[in-house]
Amino acid sequence: MERQSFCFLFVQSTIHQIFSVSKAGPEQVSLKSIKITGAEIIDLRIPTSDQMLGSDPFHKMPDYSSAVLHLKTDSGLKGVSIVFTVGAGTDWICHGIQDLCQLVIGADLESLTESPITLYQRLIDHHQLRWLHDGVFRMAAGAILNAVFDLWAKAVRKPMWKLLVDLEPEFVVDCIDWRNIQDALTPEEALEILQRNRPALGRRQSDMQVQGPKAYCTAGWLGLSDQQILETIQNLQKQGFDSFKLKVGRDSEQDVERIRFMRDAIGPDCNLMVDANQYWGLEEAKRHIKRYLPFGLKWIEEPIARDDVLGYVELAETFKSASFGMACGEHAASPVIFKQLLKSRAIKYCQIDAVRVAGVNDIMAIVLMAAKYEIPICPHGGGIALCNMISHYGMWDQIAVAGHSETQLVEYIDFLQDAVEQPVKIQDGCYVAPTAHGWGLEFHPEFIERHRFPNGEVWKDRAANRKGAAFEVALK
Amino acid sequence: MERQSFCFLFVQSTIHQIFSVSKAGPEQVSLKSIKITGAEIIDLRIPTSDQMLGSDPFHKMPDYSSAVLHLKTDSGLKGVSIVFTVGAGTDWICHGIQDLCQLVIGADLESLTESPITLYQRLIDHHQLRWLHDGVFRMAAGAILNAVFDLWAKAVRKPMWKLLVDLEPEFVVDCIDWRNIQDALTPEEALEILQRNRPALGRRQSDMQVQGPKAYCTAGWLGLSDQQILETIQNLQKQGFDSFKLKVGRDSEQDVERIRFMRDAIGPDCNLMVDANQYWGLEEAKRHIKRYLPFGLKWIEEPIARDDVLGYVELAETFKSASFGMACGEHAASPVIFKQLLKSRAIKYCQIDAVRVAGVNDIMAIVLMAAKYEIPICPHGGGIALCNMISHYGMWDQIAVAGHSETQLVEYIDFLQDAVEQPVKIQDGCYVAPTAHGWGLEFHPEFIERHRFPNGEVWKDRAANRKGAAFEVALK
Repeated sequence: MERQSFCFLFVQSTIHQIFSVSKAGPEQVSLKSIKITGAEIIDLRIPTSDQMLGSDPFHKMPDYSSAVLHLKTDSGLKGVSIVFTVGAGTDWICHGIQDLCQLVIGADLESLTESPITLYQRLIDHHQLRWLHDGVFRMAAGAILNAVFDLWAKAVRKPMWKLLVDLEPEFVVDCIDWRNIQDALTPEEALEILQRNRPALGRRQSDMQVQGPKAYCTAGWLGLSDQQILETIQNLQKQGFDSFKLKVGRDSEQDVERIRFMRDAIGPDCNLMVDANQYWGLEEAKRHIKRYLPFGLKWIEEPIARDDVLGYVELAETFKSASFGMACGEHAASPVIFKQLLKSRAIKYCQIDAVRVAGVNDIMAIVLMAAKYEIPICPHGGGIALCNMISHYGMWDQIAVAGHSETQLVEYIDFLQDAVEQPVKIQDGCYVAPTAHGWGLEFHPEFIERHRFPNGEVWKDRAANRKGAAFEVALK
Repeated sequence: MERQSFCFLFVQSTIHQIFSVSKAGPEQVSLKSIKITGAEIIDLRIPTSDQMLGSDPFHKMPDYSSAVLHLKTDSGLKGVSIVFTVGAGTDWICHGIQDLCQLVIGADLESLTESPITLYQRLIDHHQLRWLHDGVFRMAAGAILNAVFDLWAKAVRKPMWKLLVDLEPEFVVDCIDWRNIQDALTPEEALEILQRNRPALGRRQSDMQVQGPKAYCTAGWLGLSDQQILETIQNLQKQGFDSFKLKVGRDSEQDVERIRFMRDAIGPDCNLMVDANQYWGLEEAKRHIKRYLPFGLKWIEEPIARDDVLGYVELAETFKSASFGMACGEHAASPVIFKQLLKSRAIKYCQIDAVRVAGVNDIMAIVLMAAKYEIPICPHGGGIALCNMISHYGMWDQIAVAGHSETQLVEYIDFLQDAVEQPVKIQDGCYVAPTAHGWGLEFHPEFIERHRFPNGEVWKDRAANRKGAAFEVALK
């Protein structure tokens, strides 16, 4: 009830109006009237390692997990965000989020959204916390920012993509931390990119609501037999997919055989990508990748370390005549790393992750840099509910930043979609445009209760076996 | 008593002997007999922001702090390590160390030291924790590794530098994670570097025991008046210093005036360095640095973001004819970042930090890469007891890796040295070779009790005011 009466105030407002009347008017009062009263941080873990789901050479037995943040308000609305991890370590991030929540509890929503760079800088440039570098710190900061954006989108009754699309170009530019990236993209260039898409915004939005971002899927998991891979491909093709990924990395001979097998199975016209999950050193990567030249691959994903920029530059040069380009970003921890990969054109596909960098603000910077260098945004999906988030970024990019859908592919993995109230949908190989307000990250309450670590039903008898660092698996 | 009788067993052993008899013999039994029985992790914070000590444009009110790890054993020996931070955030690292301790509690010392890469990989490549990236995770892992090395050095009754110097070259090479750095340095090249220094090891060691690594000091803190800076310089010159650093970053006009003032004060023959603490973007850095050309500076420290490798490459090219080179590393979070800065020769001074990367193993990799590219190791000091650690790395580098002392400068800051039982000593502007066993990181017990956060004497009445993220200071 409380929620309905609140929403009524906003039903006819647009985000434009909210900003254009930011000094006065009923909308301002209403955003201002939403106060953050508290936070619940949930260590949510799914024992996916029971089935070896999502394993790769480094992450041999992942338990897909999320630090889930619920920002509570006095309005009945709840701001939700997640930080995906692969099990142990979720508590590290929960600890950080708990600390950072102090910066938003007690604030009203208007004070946080009228200038999102202010909250961003309070977090990322915190005079005592910035020492903690990227990783846990930046991911925890992202959780705060993303939950505030979720609350904002819910308050104005829009899916996240629509909130972003409707922001004035000047406002988007003001969301970005420009300190370290202006050699790659200036605020003026960012503004120009956003403004040149304005005339077609209505048409692009309508088009994308009919058919959302084109998706791709991994069919070649390391643990699967040839027969299982064939079945996976057939199943995906029935859903309209024509782009498939294959995990590689360890045995060069087996990898080449599997690439050949996949190419034969999908035919010459489908997209085929491979993912090495950072398993190789630079020279090792060259040796492996040279053997992939005959198969018309689209991209080589994470052939080397996540932040080896000069390594990527060298790979791009080595394979400049190949059908494929390099792809990475899933583990790139900040806009500074992305800046270098994009400006140097060392990567041909920019794989943003929705929760490794500091929230919407960092993603805005990265997507705009990618647009300048005409490098398609191909977000990393999977995990728990990452696809729910990246569908919004795909929409925003393809409507308002890149402004087209010709080169982008958004990852799709159907794991664990039954955990959320608003599962992502695929139609004809494309995402269906999300319609729920905010990110659409609401988990079923009973799912949360069952999977709370270490005391939920799923864990209580065996949490001790998978407790933190003690749950080990040798790399080889 | 327990400790004395234990030490007696080792008094005549050398680390060589321990390894050469690693399959049998009394020494092996003895290392094996030391079992890690538990860990105490201490959130130690000093309210240095009361006096604005150590502030810079980003870290405006640092409370110098350390996550202190005490690994307890059944032998009476204690393995000690620290992770320095600037206040809030110490608890984040303590949380991580607590988790990782599970990997060493219950182990005997031999099992951890006979192949240090095994422990390193169990930490850094942990199949569920590596997702956490660098920063908190890598720093916490470093705490474990450094405490184990401390225990080892104490068990064999050597200062850390001597333990490192005495390791067989092959053993050092086997301590290193080679996955991502072999394009810059191969294991064979590392071995060759270490072996070529072997003939002069005895002489170099004797020389360095007479006069340790040459030190430099910051005289130009942002908050000081001209008169205070003059007094600081005079005081340092009396101690034999001829190399001085100055903080810059905000007001270009004031910075240039201060550089001129410092140069006049110290004369043309002393080394003068400036430190911008990452405050600038790339183009901004160029504008500032161009104005510094006339002053015969030695280095420009952290002009841009800590991991902007291509930015450093561009700065090196822009200022290739200048008297100065670029220096960074204090905030470089992994050997992969160092690899790029060194291989590209973008930096001329390699400023390792003792606790940001994953312990001795990562430092070995970085120091050896620097030696190959003939880039001097000029470690970052200060904080709490960082100088105690880097004096060992300076010794090891200048005896066994670079094998000379001609180009290196090791930072020295005398803050908080009264907190430790073995304060570093300076003589004729050089460190005095440490003689205490291990790192020499023992804090006075009463200092620890007074400064435990949040319940120590110093904090109990005001911890609430500086609690975590809530202790804010605006950046500008």
